Amino acid sequence: MDAFRFYNPTTLYYGKGQIEKHLADEVTKIGKRVLLLYGGGSIKRNGLYDKVVSILQNAGVRLFELSGVEPNPRLSTVHKGIDICRENNVDLILAVGGGSVLDCGKAIAMGVKYDGDVWDIYQRKGKATGALPLGTILTLAATGSEMNSGGVITNWETKEKLGGGSPYTFPVFSFCDPENTYTVPRDQTVYGICDMLAHCFEHYFHPTRHTPLQQHLIEAVMRTIVEHAKTAVENPNDYDARETMMYCSTMALNGMISMGIRGDWACHAIEHEISAIYDIPHGGGLAIVFPHWMEHVKSANPSRFASLAKHVFGVDGGGKTDAELADIAIAQVRAFYQSIGAPQRLADYEIGDEQLERMASQAVRFGEIGNFKKLGKDDVYQILKSAL
Amino acid sequence: MDAFRFYNPTTLYYGKGQIEKHLADEVTKIGKRVLLLYGGGSIKRNGLYDKVVSILQNAGVRLFELSGVEPNPRLSTVHKGIDICRENNVDLILAVGGGSVLDCGKAIAMGVKYDGDVWDIYQRKGKATGALPLGTILTLAATGSEMNSGGVITNWETKEKLGGGSPYTFPVFSFCDPENTYTVPRDQTVYGICDMLAHCFEHYFHPTRHTPLQQHLIEAVMRTIVEHAKTAVENPNDYDARETMMYCSTMALNGMISMGIRGDWACHAIEHEISAIYDIPHGGGLAIVFPHWMEHVKSANPSRFASLAKHVFGVDGGGKTDAELADIAIAQVRAFYQSIGAPQRLADYEIGDEQLERMASQAVRFGEIGNFKKLGKDDVYQILKSAL
Repeated sequence: MDAFRFYNPTTLYYGKGQIEKHLADEVTKIGKRVLLLYGGGSIKRNGLYDKVVSILQNAGVRLFELSGVEPNPRLSTVHKGIDICRENNVDLILAVGGGSVLDCGKAIAMGVKYDGDVWDIYQRKGKATGALPLGTILTLAATGSEMNSGGVITNWETKEKLGGGSPYTFPVFSFCDPENTYTVPRDQTVYGICDMLAHCFEHYFHPTRHTPLQQHLIEAVMRTIVEHAKTAVENPNDYDARETMMYCSTMALNGMISMGIRGDWACHAIEHEISAIYDIPHGGGLAIVFPHWMEHVKSANPSRFASLAKHVFGVDGGGKTDAELADIAIAQVRAFYQSIGAPQRLADYEIGDEQLERMASQAVRFGEIGNFKKLGKDDVYQILKSAL
Repeated sequence: MDAFRFYNPTTLYYGKGQIEKHLADEVTKIGKRVLLLYGGGSIKRNGLYDKVVSILQNAGVRLFELSGVEPNPRLSTVHKGIDICRENNVDLILAVGGGSVLDCGKAIAMGVKYDGDVWDIYQRKGKATGALPLGTILTLAATGSEMNSGGVITNWETKEKLGGGSPYTFPVFSFCDPENTYTVPRDQTVYGICDMLAHCFEHYFHPTRHTPLQQHLIEAVMRTIVEHAKTAVENPNDYDARETMMYCSTMALNGMISMGIRGDWACHAIEHEISAIYDIPHGGGLAIVFPHWMEHVKSANPSRFASLAKHVFGVDGGGKTDAELADIAIAQVRAFYQSIGAPQRLADYEIGDEQLERMASQAVRFGEIGNFKKLGKDDVYQILKSAL
């Protein structure tokens, strides 16, 4: 493995009843002026909003609210949040929602302490200099944002979607109660599963030598996702399945299974270009891109794909070459996506070939992408074309 | 899984060259008066002592030293360390060594801030009220103490060996360079491997329902240990194997593979009674106890043992009952211990049946032990007797 530094200070609360027991303490030990950040109002329909407001008001907390955070959270919303925090001397941001709300919270938290436009940080033109404390209550199993320091923001004016973060933007605390995901619609559940599996793929397909434990840990998460995803999609009120998906999503991107690895991340870069233009769900885009990326890069290291077939999908490797097992692995990945009803082609979102050139150019505008195999503009174009 | 809270703020540095790059910064951002704690002098022979002293003196750090920390660290040594820290206004304890030195550092760190005898905390008569910051440089892959808040101290006067800890005793930083384990003697390498595998067993054999990801994560660590241990034992300068063992030992007991699980821990309790009287190596004692404990408890949940056989030792489960697979799993565990030259019986340490009764009584003096299956005094006696 590579030499590494690992640090993750988030206090993680999992399970039923943890919000009731610990939220007020965690908030008030930081402060009493809180920005409550949330999305489209699903937390009002399912009762979580009322529960949180009641707990915090009883603890003497003054709440400021920003709702309407978009599924691909927009820079304009981040700016609004920064203004509210500055004008009201907010002590803590409490982001209640899925990854988009949490990512928006991270951007606001950095922006409040940044002398300039927070977009600089996402454009790699500036570095975060601090952040307001951020707490989260997760309502969607997907991004892992509840226990990492990164997030993705879309600048709708320039059609750019960029990831960014800082050592300051780990949530101070995160509450993950699987019951808060019961009301997540089927499609969103599927996209979340595609997203967490994609994070595993990004780690798993790396060029770092000798990482046996990391390989097995990533396989553990992938295998668990594959074994339990269908139940979560088909029985939305199955506590065990919802809990397993939520826990897999946290572990897939909190750094614990990917220490000392340079992950690939080309598919994320490609998907960001698709959704920056077409505003499609991130998880859906990833499910479309990955099998085509796999076909494009499999020759770089077929044995990795062979391990995927054997250790995640339980394929008997006896008598088969790595190249054969690689094809089986990719077929299994496609079959898994199909089994949970994930989109398969860009056409599923009515995306044609009009913008392929632009997306391919944008994806590599900071240079080649990917670590498992370096991809240039032509590679990205071919992957997108095969995904039409 | 059970509802849980997870928190682990240790900054972990892994790999070659990290001490040279980051130690001075990590120390001096906390303070300039440092207690350097170490064991029997192996770090003087292999050059690590000189390296650390030189780095810290160049950074303007004033060092106070306490050497001679025992393999089962003693309360009397802890008391010495507390006195040195108090008398010299020490800012930070830097523990350089294996788990014993690190555990001693944790006890000193708590003791300095505790108004009373720190032994109270281990006896569950008092609670830690704070701790001096602790940094560590690990030289032995075994206990996981470099990334958790617990430790074990022996009161040699009362022949008691007790585990304890606090939320304050996570190391602030830990440096793990596999090269610092090259000079670990063969026996100590073996004991370390037995210890890390034992931690996995303690997690794996739990009574908590529905923990698929945790099971797979623990299996990932166990499988990696089983696959690479022999190389580390036989080729002490094999960087990859030493790195893998070191990394497995950290991951086996930093809480990341055991969230939401009530582990068993009966074998640790039993082993502590053996080594409290006979002062044998902890890892050696665990290797002796575990197979006999497994025989004693296997009927409580044979399917867990069947999973061990299949997912760690690669046994084909086809056509076999769980009970049959459980027997195969135990045979595989024994064969693994034998393959690395671990002790198999109490007689290997010339321990007879004279103190079985006393050890069994002591093991259950706070009540029944174990969670996978509750054990009383008779159970412990039988396990010890079968291990003679």
